Amino acid sequence: MEDHPTFDLNPRLTEDTPAPAVSIAADWAKTFPLASSPYINTTDLPRPSILNLAQGVPGHLPSPGLLTRVQHEGKQQPLAAHAYTDVFGVTELRQAIAEEVNARYSYTPAAGTVAVSNVAVTAGANLAFAIVAQALAQHGDAIVLPVPWYFNHQMTLASLGIRALPLPTSNGLPSVPELVSLLKQHDRIKAVVVVSPNNPAGLTYPNDLLEHIFDTCATARIALVLDETYRDFVLLEDGSALAPPHDLLSRPKWANTLVSISSFSKSYAIPGHRLGFILCHPSLLLTRPADGDPPIFGPIAKALDNYQICPPRADTQRAVAWAISAPEEQAWRLNVAVDLQRRRDAFVESIRVKQTVGAKTVSLEELGWKVVSIGAYYALVKTPFTEVSSEIVARALAGLVGVVVLPGKFFMPDGSTDPNAQCIRVSIANVSAERLAELPSRLMMLTTLYSEGNNSFQLGT
Amino acid sequence: MEDHPTFDLNPRLTEDTPAPAVSIAADWAKTFPLASSPYINTTDLPRPSILNLAQGVPGHLPSPGLLTRVQHEGKQQPLAAHAYTDVFGVTELRQAIAEEVNARYSYTPAAGTVAVSNVAVTAGANLAFAIVAQALAQHGDAIVLPVPWYFNHQMTLASLGIRALPLPTSNGLPSVPELVSLLKQHDRIKAVVVVSPNNPAGLTYPNDLLEHIFDTCATARIALVLDETYRDFVLLEDGSALAPPHDLLSRPKWANTLVSISSFSKSYAIPGHRLGFILCHPSLLLTRPADGDPPIFGPIAKALDNYQICPPRADTQRAVAWAISAPEEQAWRLNVAVDLQRRRDAFVESIRVKQTVGAKTVSLEELGWKVVSIGAYYALVKTPFTEVSSEIVARALAGLVGVVVLPGKFFMPDGSTDPNAQCIRVSIANVSAERLAELPSRLMMLTTLYSEGNNSFQLGT
Repeated sequence: MEDHPTFDLNPRLTEDTPAPAVSIAADWAKTFPLASSPYINTTDLPRPSILNLAQGVPGHLPSPGLLTRVQHEGKQQPLAAHAYTDVFGVTELRQAIAEEVNARYSYTPAAGTVAVSNVAVTAGANLAFAIVAQALAQHGDAIVLPVPWYFNHQMTLASLGIRALPLPTSNGLPSVPELVSLLKQHDRIKAVVVVSPNNPAGLTYPNDLLEHIFDTCATARIALVLDETYRDFVLLEDGSALAPPHDLLSRPKWANTLVSISSFSKSYAIPGHRLGFILCHPSLLLTRPADGDPPIFGPIAKALDNYQICPPRADTQRAVAWAISAPEEQAWRLNVAVDLQRRRDAFVESIRVKQTVGAKTVSLEELGWKVVSIGAYYALVKTPFTEVSSEIVARALAGLVGVVVLPGKFFMPDGSTDPNAQCIRVSIANVSAERLAELPSRLMMLTTLYSEGNNSFQLGT
Repeated sequence: MEDHPTFDLNPRLTEDTPAPAVSIAADWAKTFPLASSPYINTTDLPRPSILNLAQGVPGHLPSPGLLTRVQHEGKQQPLAAHAYTDVFGVTELRQAIAEEVNARYSYTPAAGTVAVSNVAVTAGANLAFAIVAQALAQHGDAIVLPVPWYFNHQMTLASLGIRALPLPTSNGLPSVPELVSLLKQHDRIKAVVVVSPNNPAGLTYPNDLLEHIFDTCATARIALVLDETYRDFVLLEDGSALAPPHDLLSRPKWANTLVSISSFSKSYAIPGHRLGFILCHPSLLLTRPADGDPPIFGPIAKALDNYQICPPRADTQRAVAWAISAPEEQAWRLNVAVDLQRRRDAFVESIRVKQTVGAKTVSLEELGWKVVSIGAYYALVKTPFTEVSSEIVARALAGLVGVVVLPGKFFMPDGSTDPNAQCIRVSIANVSAERLAELPSRLMMLTTLYSEGNNSFQLGT
C-alpha cells in the first residue's frame, strides 16, 4: 500500500510525541552484528547472542505458586474468570493492596488510612499514569517532570497537549528551591511527578526530600504524582526485608495532595498480564453520599471506563490478591530483591575489575566508564565516548557488540544540557547474573573499537 | 477521609464527561427490590434474582478448546507467556486477523489487501477507539457520532476536549445528505464514527449506505472509523455461516479513509481478557522505509505505547490466533451466533405473545411495548411509559422488577429530541434463553405497577 491516508493526523502525536524508546532500541538490536562489528567474519570470536538491557523486564518466570494460583482461581469461578470485573478491579485485590500498603508504609498512630476506596487496579502503570494525568490536567495545562524523566510520562503529556516542564536534578535528585522557583515561573501547573525508586537513575528519593516536595505541592495546591513501580526492589540495610518506600502515607491527609502509582509487572514478574494500581483520594474514584443519593463518579472512574473498562482477568487479579500477603510469595519477592542487589553489586564491581586487553591490563573505570547512579532496577552509566551522542553510543553497543541499552538522551528534552544525556541506562534485571557477566568484555571491546575508529564508531551496515 | 483534594481536577472529565453508564446501572440493580416492588412483603411471589441485561456481556464460558489452548500456549513458551509482547501484539495473532479479514470480507480481484502491517492488537475495543480518536483529533477538533451513539465514544471525546457532533438517524440509520450538510456546517471535523452492527440499535448498516458514507468521508478528506465489535453475530440469511460484514475492504485504497475497530470480548466470550484490534493504514502504525532508514512510528504506535505498552498476555493472544481459523472454533462461534438469533426471535415473540393479567389476556405489544430495532447483540425497545424519562423507566425496571437495562437517554446528548431517548436498550446475549423467558412477565408487572401508580412509578426506598 503505497498511498497515504487522506485524513489528517493529530500533530500532538505525530509531531510533539517522540517515538517509543523501547521499540527504537529493539530495532537497533536487529542490526547486530554490523559489518564493522568484531563478531563479523572472525573465526576466533564466537558470535554472542544479544544482551538486551533496554526495556525494564524481569528475566525470570513468575513464582510457581502464583501461576498455580491463577489456574486455581480460574477453576473456582470459571465464568467470572473470563468476564469483565468492576472498573476498579476485583475487591479482593483492592483490599489486599490497601492492607499491604498500610502494613508496609505506615509508622504513626495515623496509620491504616488506606482503604479499598483509595485503590483502583489498572491495566499496568503506564495506563495508570495516563489516566492520572488526564484526571489532573487538560490541553494547555502543565505538569512538572524532573530530568531525567521516564519517557512514557513525557510522551503521554505531549500527546495530550499538556506541557511537560523539566525540573533539573543534581545527582539524580531535584532541589526544592528550584521546584518552588519553577512553580512561580509558570502558570497552569497541575502536578509534579516523581519516580522513586527512579527510572532511569535507579536511586530512591530520600524521605525528607519527598516530604519537602509533598509540602511544596500542598502549599501550591497541586498534586504530587509518585510513580512507585520499583518499590519492591529496595531492601532494608541488613537485607532482611523490603524497605518501607516512604512516610507520606502516614499523614492523615495524604490523599489531598498525593496520587501514587505502582505496578505488579516487575516485582511479580507478570508484565504481559498488565496489572498496576493507583492510590488516591476516594473522590477521584467513587463517592457514595451518606444520604442515599446516587454515587458520584470521579474523573479517574470515568477515564478508566473509557480506556480499560476493567483491568485484565479476574483469575490473575485474585491470584495476585493472594500473592500479596502469602508468606511464601513474600519470601519469593524478597529473594528476587536480594538477587537484584547482588546483580547491582556485581555490575558495579565489573566496571572496576581489571581486564587484559592485548598487552594492557586495565579496568573499564580507568578507561572512562562510570556508574553515575544505581538502585532498584536501573543503572545510569557514563561512557568514555564524550565526542558522540548517547544515541550513537547505544546504536554502536547494539550493532557492534550486541548490547542493547537506552541512551540517556531519551530521558530528557531535546538539546538538554543535563550531564546524564551522555549516559546510557542499563536495565540490570533483564538477564541472569551469568549473562550479565558477559557485559564487561563487550564494553571493553566497544572501547577498543572506538579508539581504533579514531574516536568514532563505524556504524555502516 | 472527609477532606477534599487541594489540587484541581480536569473539567473535561469532571464536568463534560458523563458517568460510566454500566456502573450507574449496576448501582440501580443494588436497589432491588424497592419497598414499592411487588416482590417485597409478599408470600405468593417468590423473589426473583436480578436479570441483568445492561452491559453487553456473553452469558457463557469461552469455548473449552480455547481455554485448553491458552494453557497449552502458556506451557509452550513459559517465560514469554508472562512477558511483554510487541506493542502491536504477537505477530501470529496479527497474521491470523489479517487472514481472517481477507477471507471473510473480500470478494473482488482486489481482495487480500489486509496484511500484518495493517493490524494492531489492543487491550480491548474501548482502548482501540480511544487510541484512534487521539490519533485523528486533538482538543478543539470535532468527530461526528450518529445518534444514538455508544456512550463510551462520546465520553472519550468529551474527556479529550474533542467535540462530539451528533448526526441524527431515522430507524437507526443516518442519511448521507444530512452528513454532508453537517460536514459543511462545522470546521475541524476529523472523522465520522459508525458502529455496525449497532450499539445500541442492534441493526447492521446496509452495505450501500456504508459505501456512501465512505465516499463522503473520502471526499471530505476525513476518516471513517468503523466499530465492528459485533460483526461475529450476523448470519447469512440461510444461517449457514457468518455474513461478510461489508465490502469496504475490497477497495484497494480502503486504508486511505477507513479505520476499523473490533473486539474478541463478545464473540470469543473473553471480555475480561481485554483483547481487540485496529485495522488501519500501515503509516498509522509503523513504516519501514525501503532505504534502510530507521522505522517511522505512527500516531497509533505512540499512543499504544503510552496506554497499553502491549495488549495482555501472549498465551491468550496465541490461543486466539489459533482459534480464529480452527474449524471447531469457527463452528463454536457460528453456534453462538445461531443461538443469539434464536434468542432475538424469542424476545421479539415474547412482546407479541398474550399473557393473562388478572381478568385480562393481553400482549406487551398491545400495552405499548415495541421492539424498535434488533440485531446482533442488542434491542432498542419502546416502552409505554411516555410520561417519564427512560432513566426513570430503567431505574424502575431495576428496583421494582429486578430487570437491569440501559435507558436510551444514555446514548445521546442531553435534551435530545431523538425518539430513541424514550427507549431502553436490552442486551439479549447476557443471559440464557431460559432466563430471558422470565422477562415478559416482569415487563407486564411493571406495566401494571405503572397504571396502579397513576402513570408514575413509586421509587421510594
